[in-house]
Amino acid sequence: MYIKRNISWSLILRFAWKNLIFFALYAATVFYLYHIWGWTHIDIPFEPLSVIGIAVAFYIGFKNSQSYDRFWEARKIWGGIVNYSRTWANNVLSLVEDDRSAQITLIYRHIAWINALRIQLRQPNSFSIRENRAIERLFDKHGERNPVCNGMDDLLGPKEVEALENRKNVATHLVKKQGQHLKQLLAEGKITEFDKQIFHNNLEEMYNLQGKCERIKNTPFPRQYAYFSTVFTWVFLLLLPFGLLNVFETQLKELEVGHNWWYIVLMIFFSILISWIFSTMEKVGSNSEDPFEGRINDVPMTALCRTIEIDLRDMLDEENLPKKIKPQHNILY
Amino acid sequence: MYIKRNISWSLILRFAWKNLIFFALYAATVFYLYHIWGWTHIDIPFEPLSVIGIAVAFYIGFKNSQSYDRFWEARKIWGGIVNYSRTWANNVLSLVEDDRSAQITLIYRHIAWINALRIQLRQPNSFSIRENRAIERLFDKHGERNPVCNGMDDLLGPKEVEALENRKNVATHLVKKQGQHLKQLLAEGKITEFDKQIFHNNLEEMYNLQGKCERIKNTPFPRQYAYFSTVFTWVFLLLLPFGLLNVFETQLKELEVGHNWWYIVLMIFFSILISWIFSTMEKVGSNSEDPFEGRINDVPMTALCRTIEIDLRDMLDEENLPKKIKPQHNILY
Amino acid sequence: MYIKRNISWSLILRFAWKNLIFFALYAATVFYLYHIWGWTHIDIPFEPLSVIGIAVAFYIGFKNSQSYDRFWEARKIWGGIVNYSRTWANNVLSLVEDDRSAQITLIYRHIAWINALRIQLRQPNSFSIRENRAIERLFDKHGERNPVCNGMDDLLGPKEVEALENRKNVATHLVKKQGQHLKQLLAEGKITEFDKQIFHNNLEEMYNLQGKCERIKNTPFPRQYAYFSTVFTWVFLLLLPFGLLNVFETQLKELEVGHNWWYIVLMIFFSILISWIFSTMEKVGSNSEDPFEGRINDVPMTALCRTIEIDLRDMLDEENLPKKIKPQHNILY
Amino acid sequence: MYIKRNISWSLILRFAWKNLIFFALYAATVFYLYHIWGWTHIDIPFEPLSVIGIAVAFYIGFKNSQSYDRFWEARKIWGGIVNYSRTWANNVLSLVEDDRSAQITLIYRHIAWINALRIQLRQPNSFSIRENRAIERLFDKHGERNPVCNGMDDLLGPKEVEALENRKNVATHLVKKQGQHLKQLLAEGKITEFDKQIFHNNLEEMYNLQGKCERIKNTPFPRQYAYFSTVFTWVFLLLLPFGLLNVFETQLKELEVGHNWWYIVLMIFFSILISWIFSTMEKVGSNSEDPFEGRINDVPMTALCRTIEIDLRDMLDEENLPKKIKPQHNILY
Amino acid sequence: MYIKRNISWSLILRFAWKNLIFFALYAATVFYLYHIWGWTHIDIPFEPLSVIGIAVAFYIGFKNSQSYDRFWEARKIWGGIVNYSRTWANNVLSLVEDDRSAQITLIYRHIAWINALRIQLRQPNSFSIRENRAIERLFDKHGERNPVCNGMDDLLGPKEVEALENRKNVATHLVKKQGQHLKQLLAEGKITEFDKQIFHNNLEEMYNLQGKCERIKNTPFPRQYAYFSTVFTWVFLLLLPFGLLNVFETQLKELEVGHNWWYIVLMIFFSILISWIFSTMEKVGSNSEDPFEGRINDVPMTALCRTIEIDLRDMLDEENLPKKIKPQHNILY
Repeated sequence: MYIKRNISWSLILRFAWKNLIFFALYAATVFYLYHIWGWTHIDIPFEPLSVIGIAVAFYIGFKNSQSYDRFWEARKIWGGIVNYSRTWANNVLSLVEDDRSAQITLIYRHIAWINALRIQLRQPNSFSIRENRAIERLFDKHGERNPVCNGMDDLLGPKEVEALENRKNVATHLVKKQGQHLKQLLAEGKITEFDKQIFHNNLEEMYNLQGKCERIKNTPFPRQYAYFSTVFTWVFLLLLPFGLLNVFETQLKELEVGHNWWYIVLMIFFSILISWIFSTMEKVGSNSEDPFEGRINDVPMTALCRTIEIDLRDMLDEENLPKKIKPQHNILY
Repeated sequence: MYIKRNISWSLILRFAWKNLIFFALYAATVFYLYHIWGWTHIDIPFEPLSVIGIAVAFYIGFKNSQSYDRFWEARKIWGGIVNYSRTWANNVLSLVEDDRSAQITLIYRHIAWINALRIQLRQPNSFSIRENRAIERLFDKHGERNPVCNGMDDLLGPKEVEALENRKNVATHLVKKQGQHLKQLLAEGKITEFDKQIFHNNLEEMYNLQGKCERIKNTPFPRQYAYFSTVFTWVFLLLLPFGLLNVFETQLKELEVGHNWWYIVLMIFFSILISWIFSTMEKVGSNSEDPFEGRINDVPMTALCRTIEIDLRDMLDEENLPKKIKPQHNILY
Repeated sequence: MYIKRNISWSLILRFAWKNLIFFALYAATVFYLYHIWGWTHIDIPFEPLSVIGIAVAFYIGFKNSQSYDRFWEARKIWGGIVNYSRTWANNVLSLVEDDRSAQITLIYRHIAWINALRIQLRQPNSFSIRENRAIERLFDKHGERNPVCNGMDDLLGPKEVEALENRKNVATHLVKKQGQHLKQLLAEGKITEFDKQIFHNNLEEMYNLQGKCERIKNTPFPRQYAYFSTVFTWVFLLLLPFGLLNVFETQLKELEVGHNWWYIVLMIFFSILISWIFSTMEKVGSNSEDPFEGRINDVPMTALCRTIEIDLRDMLDEENLPKKIKPQHNILY
Repeated sequence: MYIKRNISWSLILRFAWKNLIFFALYAATVFYLYHIWGWTHIDIPFEPLSVIGIAVAFYIGFKNSQSYDRFWEARKIWGGIVNYSRTWANNVLSLVEDDRSAQITLIYRHIAWINALRIQLRQPNSFSIRENRAIERLFDKHGERNPVCNGMDDLLGPKEVEALENRKNVATHLVKKQGQHLKQLLAEGKITEFDKQIFHNNLEEMYNLQGKCERIKNTPFPRQYAYFSTVFTWVFLLLLPFGLLNVFETQLKELEVGHNWWYIVLMIFFSILISWIFSTMEKVGSNSEDPFEGRINDVPMTALCRTIEIDLRDMLDEENLPKKIKPQHNILY
Repeated sequence: MYIKRNISWSLILRFAWKNLIFFALYAATVFYLYHIWGWTHIDIPFEPLSVIGIAVAFYIGFKNSQSYDRFWEARKIWGGIVNYSRTWANNVLSLVEDDRSAQITLIYRHIAWINALRIQLRQPNSFSIRENRAIERLFDKHGERNPVCNGMDDLLGPKEVEALENRKNVATHLVKKQGQHLKQLLAEGKITEFDKQIFHNNLEEMYNLQGKCERIKNTPFPRQYAYFSTVFTWVFLLLLPFGLLNVFETQLKELEVGHNWWYIVLMIFFSILISWIFSTMEKVGSNSEDPFEGRINDVPMTALCRTIEIDLRDMLDEENLPKKIKPQHNILY
């Protein structure tokens, strides 16, 4: 998650440089063919193009709005994970009879669960976006995209860790373990039937939160909506210089002659500008579609997991709390 | 569900080829009449056409947005089924006193329920979409659209399967069976009144999830909205070449003569392009309206049912877990 | 609810014929005045008209979107009624101690409740839409709009039916009766306090579902939004032919003379087409505003009530189940 | 709440007359300056104006959509009050041991609560809308905007009413009284701990419903959004006649001369029409922003309170039920 | 939160003056270059500009709509805090056996919690907006942006305050303290297991409400959406005067010569007006993005905390209630 108000131009260029060069070359070629080679019949009227432009802007708007919703839902779910982590810890501390060791086990296993979930969500899948290398290298350098499963041993003890190894879905299994532990605590008389109801409501909520994350992770933004958004945008952008030829030309005739060079520079500049606006609008949405990949606009799960861990250890009155995750180049992972 | 980032052009053509040929022939005919036959009075001014174009783009946008919502709600419901399947299994394992056989029966019956629901939702109905044969054959080849009800015997035992046969709604009945089983377990003292409350909340949730699926399945996207979206798009597309005649012609006069052939090719190409964009925009929504039919953009219920089955059997500590469903030609069913 | 994918042209004409004739006559008159009488000064420039057209299309889009939401919320509520009917029956069968007669009474009274609710919602009110006679006669012929309250006797017994007669809101009273019945069952020891909690949660849900239906029924789509949508559309449509005069005329001058008759035909045809598109867009929303009236696009409450009845009787293991409601002329009521 | 399908033109004029006169005079002045005084340089090109027009239409659309949401949320909350009033009464009658007097007190106090809430919400605040006098007088005549707190004595008894007098928030206090009453009933053994849970869930819901109303009441639609909507609309409307001069003039030149008078009439008429459409669109939203003020488009709380009272007294099997509130001039308060 | 219906022009100018001066100088420079220096080739055709204008208006509309949602969600959450504060107090007074001191402690600690939460949310962060100094000074003068944590001692007692000092998240810890207190009350027999369930549901809700606030506080409106909205708007505004040159010029030629001065004034005025509309539209959203900063459009947390305190103290039958917070310069903090 980018956490500065303004995005630096160097970062914008990192994303856009390939396209900008392409737009410049493309527009230059089109204008070259028209003026120098004299292919004056290749221009197309701008009126239908402006209808396409508006229709495409709608379509992009729809896609961006839905992509934003995916991000925001993902963030809400992780907000829910924060809330229910606190509730879980509070319930453990208030309801379980004085058995500090059981309390610690229940809370540590919960911390293991959020980290297991985070790591599962960070695995790449078949429809992930790939940016140009300048961008990918930036993320790789930060080293937060291929998370290592560390610290499970400290949280769970080696025996429990071992039992997790062949499980198909580690997070699912950890919640089941909580259920089994509660069963045992009930048998030992350390919680009441009333407490069990409360705890099982929490576990239900945790499965809901986990499943909602997995839903967003495993279901791409429907490709027919997303992909055609890109295609339509590019069709529009490829037609654009031909249309600009037409409107600039009409104007050119009304003006005095002799400013051809200026006129060509202006057209190319203008063409790049419009192309950049539309391609950026389109890209802005594509970058929010999948919110768990550890990219610039994604949910900062590493930081959230750490915040939860700090809160829960603080509730356990531990000292030597771990430190908050700091942003790298203004990006929080 | 299509699970690659980009849609291959061969797949796009499979959907669009009929329309593309029609657009080409139609535009060619119109231009032929105008230029060769000299029906120069058939062109219509583009200005009102651009108002229609924008209004139609709005209308399509509304429809696409609602169609997407239908898909996404369907996916959310199945996400809920995943979550409550895990919660059900966890509750069964944590709350039912040590009676492994009852636990297995309650969990297997649940697996039977999700599969029964899937099969009921996959039945075709009176308002299903039909694509051209190239597409339908593709889906048929994958063989996932006419699901066979296999494996019920293994899950339920022959006697219980037999009792299901004349039931009007098998899924509804399976949940009722769970309720009856719980009643018996309570009588045998294997669950408490507190547990019964928890379990019955789960059953309530299952009826909610099932009913929500049935609502989307049985209620088409209101036909007055959907059908007129198609009609208006086609009215616009049929008028388009007449309007393009008008704008291109104005421009033609301003240019030098002698490039008629080029001009006609350009017009036809441009006409096909706009027509394709609008008809594709329109189609993109139509294809998401009904999310349970086992088509390219639908909820991958077969894969989800298998995932649930794996998870639940893993929670039962079974070995020899079934394998994940694999996509066919990048489509997950 | 219309349940075919495509709407037949005969049905569309049934709705639109009056308007189509009016549009034709109106456009013809305007063009007659202009060309034959020579009122050449009555045309108005198209540019401001296209701004109005786009603004009106927005406004209609907003209204259609909200009307759709009203329909869809209504459908969701009735989906909820389906779900909680099953949950109610399941709870009755699982929780009430072996007293088949009490179980039947509780479930039959529930069936009476859904039918009472349906009938209350089908009553006409002061802001219902009225279509032209061709349409109204079609609905009347199907005989589903003025529902008869039949079968209450079979479900409730004559004494209970009699007690309902002076009640202000029969559905409300039936749920109260369920509460009283539960009180008695608790006193007789046939349900526990735990069961009572579950049942009262269900009754709460039923009042919620009923009240939500009544809210949509009794609150029209705010008339200031809806009515001005119609007014603005018609203002636009009445101005349209004057604007078309202007754009066609400009074009006419550029073409050769002598095609006046063709030109007039084209203009009138075009005018009718645009008018039809906008007036249909507007009407599509108006027709979904009130979803309980028993019209072509409304919630098929009769069919849903029957489906629930079949499901519940099947859960009671009854034989001779009633039959599903069949659509009439592709309309399900 | 206006409850007829169509709004009469006399009512529309009552709202619009001031603006209509202003638009007419303003347009006339502008055209007078241009044609008679010969300030032919004051016209402005229409193209940028149409961009503003479309942008303003968007902005109004956004505001209208949010205003509608405020109204509809308010209506939903009051729908919730209806539902939970019935649930409360049902719970009181089903759960409280046979103590008719306690039942009556609990239900009457609830009726007092809904009326107290209604009256609190009807108080004017610092950001209420003010219409022209023709409109305000109409509402004042109906006498429903300054509600009198009558009947509390009958519902609560004089002692309890007295204790309410110095309370900061009477509705809040009445719910607290219910809680105290329940505590006493529990102590007397007239309700069980299970019942208390159910009742306290209801009280929680009532605080939620009350607080939601207060939130809408006390938080204006953010003024920066709402006010600029009005400002932008008026900027557009004030520029409009200058832009129309431009487009009509172009056209005028193409036509024959001598129709100046007709041309001016047409322009003024057209200018009024567009101005009226945009200013009405804008006003439609402003009128729904604050839904509790007792105006034409507001939530009919008086009628709803009466409906609840009738339902609850009917559930108590009372006779001599009060009558429904009737609309005045088609407005239900 | 601004609480007058209309925003005074002096306040609008305070926000806009810098931009207005810039727009005027910029437009004047462009027109100077064009007319006086004769750079007549620098104008650009308006047609593509109007497409950009409409696309940008869409984009702004999307952003404004989401910013509004952030504000409204924040307000809803604080509405929830109001509601659950009352419910908490009501539950404490109804459920805790007669121990006035425990009741007071539980309610005062709750008041401490809402104030701690408010203060935590008011801390500035790395992506807060900064207005020009005229605005910032206004807010600073009101002194509500850097809240002092006063009064905790009175509410909690010095010992408990001291224990809070090193806590990472004071609000989280206060809710935990409530849980510990409840544990003790249960042990003392002053609440039942049933009561504990009710109270723990409340505590769960409080963690949810707190966590939702923190989510909005710590997650900026995704910068890629927000920042490009500003960039695109400014690109459009910087191009605008060049486009206006083009459309005004065309018109100029059609009119009589000699009104150059008037024409330039008109153009500059018109340019400022459009620029102001677009930049204001854009800014309106930016100002609602972060709703907890103590700015003009933010959630009035100070006032809400006071309202809650008054209500809760009134429920405790205290006298000498604190006074309501009054708005300063029509702004409620």
